[in-house]
Amino acid sequence: MEKPRAVLFDAYGTLFDVYSVGLLAEQLFPGHGQALSVLWRDKQIEYTRLVTTSNDGAHYQPFWELTLASLRHACKRLGLALNAEREQQLMNQYRHLSAFPENREVLQALKARKVATGILSNGDPEMLGIAVRSAGLEGLLDHVLSVDGVRRYKTHPDAYRLGTQATGLAASQILFVSCNGWDALGATWFGYRTLWVNRYQLPFEELGTQPTRTGSTLRDVLSFFPS
Amino acid sequence: MEKPRAVLFDAYGTLFDVYSVGLLAEQLFPGHGQALSVLWRDKQIEYTRLVTTSNDGAHYQPFWELTLASLRHACKRLGLALNAEREQQLMNQYRHLSAFPENREVLQALKARKVATGILSNGDPEMLGIAVRSAGLEGLLDHVLSVDGVRRYKTHPDAYRLGTQATGLAASQILFVSCNGWDALGATWFGYRTLWVNRYQLPFEELGTQPTRTGSTLRDVLSFFPS
Repeated sequence: MEKPRAVLFDAYGTLFDVYSVGLLAEQLFPGHGQALSVLWRDKQIEYTRLVTTSNDGAHYQPFWELTLASLRHACKRLGLALNAEREQQLMNQYRHLSAFPENREVLQALKARKVATGILSNGDPEMLGIAVRSAGLEGLLDHVLSVDGVRRYKTHPDAYRLGTQATGLAASQILFVSCNGWDALGATWFGYRTLWVNRYQLPFEELGTQPTRTGSTLRDVLSFFPS
Repeated sequence: MEKPRAVLFDAYGTLFDVYSVGLLAEQLFPGHGQALSVLWRDKQIEYTRLVTTSNDGAHYQPFWELTLASLRHACKRLGLALNAEREQQLMNQYRHLSAFPENREVLQALKARKVATGILSNGDPEMLGIAVRSAGLEGLLDHVLSVDGVRRYKTHPDAYRLGTQATGLAASQILFVSCNGWDALGATWFGYRTLWVNRYQLPFEELGTQPTRTGSTLRDVLSFFPS
């Protein structure tokens, strides 16, 4: 099979560690950092789906707003007192999530092989810009694509279509990489070749479709480009 | 404000207790019954959203199939050995979920007030038929509406629209009742008057919209019909 001509990465959970807020969460709410970071993330994704599915996207809010809303909900749910200062601290931390350490070398290796690279993310443009700069990835990405322009979150086809539109390639010529099982599934359904980076040794979704390949770190992207 | 002319109930979680499988789950997997019933439910709902959002509903599977898929995923996730016999036992239990005890009296009271009643559910027709008969609710429901006909799960507007189509009423003339916060939210966005029955003392969703009213049992439906 022809090698992919472009590689698009999911951002949150794939290039950037959404659970890296857990440390600060634990400092602010001792004994609850882990639970808060998991519930915050789950709720954030749930909210992207609710606003996308309901009334044909009429209730869209940018990812930053949904991230704030989900933080507030998660704290109420866990009975944690989120004052304005703590909220600002946690949201600021979310703006500067840790990047996974292998990001740069993988992107550099793709550049060396003359493969187009990009991000296709639920994040809004401002969040993505800050995250990319903080991680020092600017020169290594040809495309930084945000669903904000189409006001539909993944796994809506309008969101995935941003990748084929930006690159001018067919979905089957593009490798889409995500650590989120649901995202790898949605991208596979859309028609992308897919790598699910299963960082946390989770079972894949049970909906009858498998990603093209499964790996354990972003380095497994390079298995699609044998020299 | 005019009294509602019809009351539509969500089924799973509202008329029928989705966590009533927890007891059997605990017998089969001691120490894990609660975790399994929660994860099973969460995954089931997640799957309804994934198949609805992706490729304009092309990956629709009936609720029974998604319920099975989510059970399998939840067991793998929790490291529980689900053999064919246990799977059949749990799915059979799901087919016969406990009905909340106040269902009948509330439906009878609505009938006495000459208000149209119905179910508007993600469940497929066969599941709903069995659940309604098991709970002895047949004579008390004018409509049993399944999203299966439109192949879109709530909170998609095609799903909620089943209620206005079946009753011939405007959404604002109908009271939609759900114990699921996301469902009460989606129905409110669609235009229904809504009662969120907050059985588990949870915070409501933080997306800027509130249900018309919040109650704690189905009996609170009757507050919309003062005599």
